[in-house]
Amino acid sequence: MMCRLGARIDPRIDLADRRTEMTSTPASPRARRGGRSARHALRTARDDRMMPGLTRGIPVCDVMDGAQVERIDAASMDILENVGVLFRDPVAIRDWRAVGAKVQGEMVYLDRGLVRDLIATIPADFTYSARNPANNLRLGGPHSIFVPMTGAPYLRDLDDRRRSPTLDDLAMFHKLSHMMPALHSSAHHIVEPCDHPISHRHLRITYSSMKHSDKTFMGMTTSPRNAEDVLEMCAILFGEAFMEQNPVTTGNCNGNSPLVWDETMLGAMRAFCRRNQPVLCSPFVLGGANTPASVPATVAQLNAETLSALAYTQVIRRGCPAIYGHYLSTVSMRSGAPMAGTPEISLMNFMIGQMARHYGVPWRTSSLLGGAKTFDAQAGYESAATLAAVIHSGANYIWHSAGWNEAGMHCSVAKFITDAEQCAMAFRMAEGPKWDDIDTALAAIPDVGPGGHYLGHPHTQANFQTAFFMPELFDNNSIEQWQAEGSQEITGRALALARKLLGEYREPKLDEARNEALLDYIARREREIPAAEALNQEY
Amino acid sequence: MMCRLGARIDPRIDLADRRTEMTSTPASPRARRGGRSARHALRTARDDRMMPGLTRGIPVCDVMDGAQVERIDAASMDILENVGVLFRDPVAIRDWRAVGAKVQGEMVYLDRGLVRDLIATIPADFTYSARNPANNLRLGGPHSIFVPMTGAPYLRDLDDRRRSPTLDDLAMFHKLSHMMPALHSSAHHIVEPCDHPISHRHLRITYSSMKHSDKTFMGMTTSPRNAEDVLEMCAILFGEAFMEQNPVTTGNCNGNSPLVWDETMLGAMRAFCRRNQPVLCSPFVLGGANTPASVPATVAQLNAETLSALAYTQVIRRGCPAIYGHYLSTVSMRSGAPMAGTPEISLMNFMIGQMARHYGVPWRTSSLLGGAKTFDAQAGYESAATLAAVIHSGANYIWHSAGWNEAGMHCSVAKFITDAEQCAMAFRMAEGPKWDDIDTALAAIPDVGPGGHYLGHPHTQANFQTAFFMPELFDNNSIEQWQAEGSQEITGRALALARKLLGEYREPKLDEARNEALLDYIARREREIPAAEALNQEY
Repeated sequence: MMCRLGARIDPRIDLADRRTEMTSTPASPRARRGGRSARHALRTARDDRMMPGLTRGIPVCDVMDGAQVERIDAASMDILENVGVLFRDPVAIRDWRAVGAKVQGEMVYLDRGLVRDLIATIPADFTYSARNPANNLRLGGPHSIFVPMTGAPYLRDLDDRRRSPTLDDLAMFHKLSHMMPALHSSAHHIVEPCDHPISHRHLRITYSSMKHSDKTFMGMTTSPRNAEDVLEMCAILFGEAFMEQNPVTTGNCNGNSPLVWDETMLGAMRAFCRRNQPVLCSPFVLGGANTPASVPATVAQLNAETLSALAYTQVIRRGCPAIYGHYLSTVSMRSGAPMAGTPEISLMNFMIGQMARHYGVPWRTSSLLGGAKTFDAQAGYESAATLAAVIHSGANYIWHSAGWNEAGMHCSVAKFITDAEQCAMAFRMAEGPKWDDIDTALAAIPDVGPGGHYLGHPHTQANFQTAFFMPELFDNNSIEQWQAEGSQEITGRALALARKLLGEYREPKLDEARNEALLDYIARREREIPAAEALNQEY
Repeated sequence: MMCRLGARIDPRIDLADRRTEMTSTPASPRARRGGRSARHALRTARDDRMMPGLTRGIPVCDVMDGAQVERIDAASMDILENVGVLFRDPVAIRDWRAVGAKVQGEMVYLDRGLVRDLIATIPADFTYSARNPANNLRLGGPHSIFVPMTGAPYLRDLDDRRRSPTLDDLAMFHKLSHMMPALHSSAHHIVEPCDHPISHRHLRITYSSMKHSDKTFMGMTTSPRNAEDVLEMCAILFGEAFMEQNPVTTGNCNGNSPLVWDETMLGAMRAFCRRNQPVLCSPFVLGGANTPASVPATVAQLNAETLSALAYTQVIRRGCPAIYGHYLSTVSMRSGAPMAGTPEISLMNFMIGQMARHYGVPWRTSSLLGGAKTFDAQAGYESAATLAAVIHSGANYIWHSAGWNEAGMHCSVAKFITDAEQCAMAFRMAEGPKWDDIDTALAAIPDVGPGGHYLGHPHTQANFQTAFFMPELFDNNSIEQWQAEGSQEITGRALALARKLLGEYREPKLDEARNEALLDYIARREREIPAAEALNQEY
């Protein structure tokens, strides 16, 4: 009789009882007295507690030597000094003048000395607070987190049907984010709640993130005023004073490559930085279309763009945490569409990781991306290739880690669940080998001897459940068994698991007073904001 | 108007003409006079020339420090000295006695000094010769090759139907191996030709490998006598004297973990080594079932097993090339089946790579494995995760690199084609970033300037086709375009490409005299060998 091994094992189950799972020896009288069925229930209950933040134990893949890092740095600084960056925003222009940058119209030329001086005050790591302090996360250096995808205008739902998402769909993804142990955040608009007015969405999205999970979440940056709303809601949830000292949300600000930052993003950036909340400074790079057709030159341009925004965060508020970001793809010259899982994206991630470490700034990338239209093998290859590269690159803020398909046009429930398990597997790999029980494990070898087998050995019985990860969503049965169970491909199995999880979901209740204050704030703002504003899509 | 970019571009096409592919400027008079349609045909012709052997340009993922490498080495040597290895083969027992090993019955206890002395003469790298010398490959150190899967008792065919394979199916896979540029070998029995008597198959399999491709191929090791037949056929193809100096085939010898080598494999090993042909010394490891439930202890046992066989190759013939091998999986405790793409398999690959490099021996691993029953997203995740780990591990002989699904029970045509393209992508990544045109690429940045785009820039036009890999089998079109083209998932697209390739296949003809000698040899042996012998399945 085997127990279910996909879920993590409750440490309260003692070793002697576990052994009975693997051998046919009768249960001991003690075990019988102890209520075997109760313990069986414990064992088979899913452990949906969040895994801690990942602290990596394997090396990063450094593809550049020191001279090449210097070469990229010098090229980026040359771009900042001589080509310049367009800041299409009068406030930013004024701010840049005030710190002595050379400004001509909207063009800003940043001296490398100024850039280096500004970015020097960005913290190398920080703690990202959740409303449940047990879910706080360290970010930067060897510390990484997995954050689900956001921004999908469509979903593939529990029936794998592609359609427009609703607020209920968004809540579903927030619940799943809460329950999948390797996801460290409920993010924000995983899907666009299209049943709600665009100009009010940021309020409902933020509330949904806060309500359905007690993990960290992201803050909308669709406009400066929307960002202010999000931060007001954070202040209600965490307290203004706490926020002054502690990052409680993260906002993404996309740049328009090549070398442009616009007013919307810069305004949102100011809102976040002023309240000491970190932004992801993310040029939106489509290699070959808005960068040169060269891996190192693309990295040099991207690095210049990111540095210019990182520097600006410190103009806004010295010492404010900030994250080296990017959305990075290469472009299919057939369709102009972004690709995923291609070798140059992996190489650029390795290089960008080196640059971010060179500057000592936590960095963000995107993971588990797919351009497939369905959850087919293409999606699997693309996603796993991206994930592997991201893990070896040493990225800290690993965004879009669940659900992304069709180049971000839809979030797939089946893929969301599968990706989240992939994150758990990547987590395990990135921790590195576990050496703690090497001596007892080696002692089993003479016990078993040549030609024997280990399944019955006490060391195996004590350790098989933790020694080797067993993915719940991969079917490793024989084809006969698989056929007997209905010949289900992974999409069907993942959707079945998603339904089961949603059936078991328990809401981590918000404090009642804060919940009411949040709802009051939303109600007031929905009265104030006209229900027709343009949506600024972000990635 | 865009040209097809999936195929590699013929270098004979001059730059000026390429530019007309990307801009709407009229073709120059010269281009018109030059026969535009002819050049278009050139551009769209598939380039199926083999890529060279991979020489890696990115670092390996070393997850152990020096002390941990020493710890594994010491643990393995302890096993060899004190636990012993079963050599179930009287000849091997006699050989071991002759070199002074301690022998008790079939148990051999190998002193670490003897082991180190023996393995010291294994070449760190060698050239693996093909009948077309342009397809010779270097193997070892930074030099790696991709070899298709072998041993599948079933296939999923051009209609994705799962059935027993025939000799014609095997020929089909050999043709596809020949045409996919990143596959460096036609291997041997990619699928089992079940329409031919088991005892004669090795002859037909070997001939099919030799005939349908002029790349390297593998030699069957299903029995010592079968191995002799294969080597005789190699002698006909390459000449006996050439073989004495040059590896022209590789044979796999599986060990039975824990710590057993049997007569069949050892006999085949002797046949290969005596003729200076390399064998892969591959313990068959199912982590947790035939090894301890621990990553480092599994590696220690596997390492001991491999070392014992590597040492024996040098007892057979000093200086003979040999390859550190393994088939490595972790076991699902639900079904007892091997899993693929799990984190511990990746970690063990990293560690085994370190051990092989520690001993200075070329090493083999398995790639692109899947346990899925169909070519669904599970297969994609498993395959890409395995491939990434293998690439970062620095493996030299990257076996099972195309087609493997259902834990090796079937070879899928669709997956074969897709995997082969994945190998091309991994190849590109493992080469590392290309810095050769960094200066001209950087010069494009001021040309374009903030807010511009690069698609029309001469540097882009000259380089986009080589700068960023564009996978032919990934669809990156919009969903509307994809639907307009028939809503095909990757399986359908890959099968269509396979049919197209087979239609374009041109046989690299064997020298007529050698071909006749080979056919004579096969005819004679088929008269001599009774048509009913047991099949020894190998992995």
